[in-house]
Amino acid sequence: MPATKVNLADKFATFDEAWRPKVVAQLDDYEVKVVKLDGDFTWHKHEDVDEMFLVTSGSMSIDFRDGSVDLGPGERIVVPRGVEHCPRAKSGCEALLIEKAGVVNTGDAEPSALTAGPLDVI
Amino acid sequence: MPATKVNLADKFATFDEAWRPKVVAQLDDYEVKVVKLDGDFTWHKHEDVDEMFLVTSGSMSIDFRDGSVDLGPGERIVVPRGVEHCPRAKSGCEALLIEKAGVVNTGDAEPSALTAGPLDVI
Repeated sequence: MPATKVNLADKFATFDEAWRPKVVAQLDDYEVKVVKLDGDFTWHKHEDVDEMFLVTSGSMSIDFRDGSVDLGPGERIVVPRGVEHCPRAKSGCEALLIEKAGVVNTGDAEPSALTAGPLDVI
Repeated sequence: MPATKVNLADKFATFDEAWRPKVVAQLDDYEVKVVKLDGDFTWHKHEDVDEMFLVTSGSMSIDFRDGSVDLGPGERIVVPRGVEHCPRAKSGCEALLIEKAGVVNTGDAEPSALTAGPLDVI
């Protein structure tokens, strides 16, 4: 068989750590990741890539320099390249991230404990 | 504000027709589409692009030449480029499609009533 299915809930159930995206699909030069969010992330931007968040459970917000967008389950936002943003969420928020392969989660921010190394493919 | 959110359920509620993907997100050279599936599609392949289906409600199957994969809500599959496949579903199935912009839904199959023209961005 040329392809197998993946159940996203099963993948979310395999880890607890927040802000550590895991790759659940690779297609062309793109990746789909699952991520758990908890608390405030860090202000950053991705200079050359757009980034889509799709909340699957819980709720999160994306702060921009001129306002915030609140997202619940089944809601998506595309953060355009070059735009500073800071995600934040209450505990229990799960989301999909869709973006080009190789994107560093903290973008242009100084590397910190929030910076994920090479991502696990799960 | 540099970005606005989109509620996918709201977008699904705006149309009824099956096999007519609508674009709900554009990022880089990629698109995320909503699509309703009903009945048998047509055998086809996409020579140069991978294609991801993520079921959001109902159930669908993807037939390959050597077997089938059944998908329910929260399950995804990536159909590799060049691989013949034929989606089918019972009425009521809704899914996200993630793939490069410009992909024709019927791929290399002879154009037919199932072939979608330029896609609406909703």
